[in-house]
Amino acid sequence: MSATRTNSRNETRIVVDPQLPTIEIIREFEAPPERVFRAYTEPDLVAQWLGPRRLPMRIDEYDARTGGSYRYVHRDEDGTEYGFHGVFHEVRPHDRIVQTFTFDGVPDGVSLETAVFEDLGGRTRVTTKSVLDSFEARDGMVASGMETGVVAGYERLDELLDAGTTES
Amino acid sequence: MSATRTNSRNETRIVVDPQLPTIEIIREFEAPPERVFRAYTEPDLVAQWLGPRRLPMRIDEYDARTGGSYRYVHRDEDGTEYGFHGVFHEVRPHDRIVQTFTFDGVPDGVSLETAVFEDLGGRTRVTTKSVLDSFEARDGMVASGMETGVVAGYERLDELLDAGTTES
Repeated sequence: MSATRTNSRNETRIVVDPQLPTIEIIREFEAPPERVFRAYTEPDLVAQWLGPRRLPMRIDEYDARTGGSYRYVHRDEDGTEYGFHGVFHEVRPHDRIVQTFTFDGVPDGVSLETAVFEDLGGRTRVTTKSVLDSFEARDGMVASGMETGVVAGYERLDELLDAGTTES
Repeated sequence: MSATRTNSRNETRIVVDPQLPTIEIIREFEAPPERVFRAYTEPDLVAQWLGPRRLPMRIDEYDARTGGSYRYVHRDEDGTEYGFHGVFHEVRPHDRIVQTFTFDGVPDGVSLETAVFEDLGGRTRVTTKSVLDSFEARDGMVASGMETGVVAGYERLDELLDAGTTES
């Protein structure tokens, strides 16, 4: 598969471990880690792909550095807002992002998410692992429709990378 | 048991779940949540109890607010330093602290720790749950001698609370 291929659509694999309260999401992208990492860390790029297309995203804060915080809101057609927030435990350029994640609607719920960027030679595999504190919480996150949002967001990220808007 | 009893030594319970990669630590203290919470969040107080007595603690940063970061170092008799760092996902006064935790010696290892402060009527039960991403990581943390440090630290916290130095 050529790294210059446009409109590529790689498969999103979501693995729910029967033994651990985790969700693992594996996805490859047709761009090198530097560009994919930029799309994950620069707020104006994040706003262009994270979440489904029909939900406009407002970023209140997105300080993707070790020790930084983030907060963003997805707005539904009927005006309902879905807010998410957390802190960046570690942001290691082009390599690894570790952050906490809370949906405002479940303020006591929190997961720890680690995204690892693997260089496949001009292409990138991103593996994101979410750890929750119970199987109930994990299964609730899966049942929330997370998969639809993740798959749709990654397709938008494909387009962003195809369009070359993440070139430095 | 009277809330004014001095030199009380409550039991520290450490629960290792066979089904989840978690460690739960339960401990009661002879002081109300406000005072115990202060001892958990004010750096000059934290330095007086966190960890075993024989290891002097140097705090580089301890910003115990939602979005804040921390880093501290325990120094062994032979000068070896053990550093720990993380971010505060949420600090809810007198109620709840959620933070990430990494030992510098295992830079890719990270746990998510939630401490809940329960009011027992002038006394406090603190339940701290650590979630790791595998049973190996959890068992490694238990095997590291964590228990000794936790129990010894809580005894120092008893003394700090007895001495009344956490009164506001």
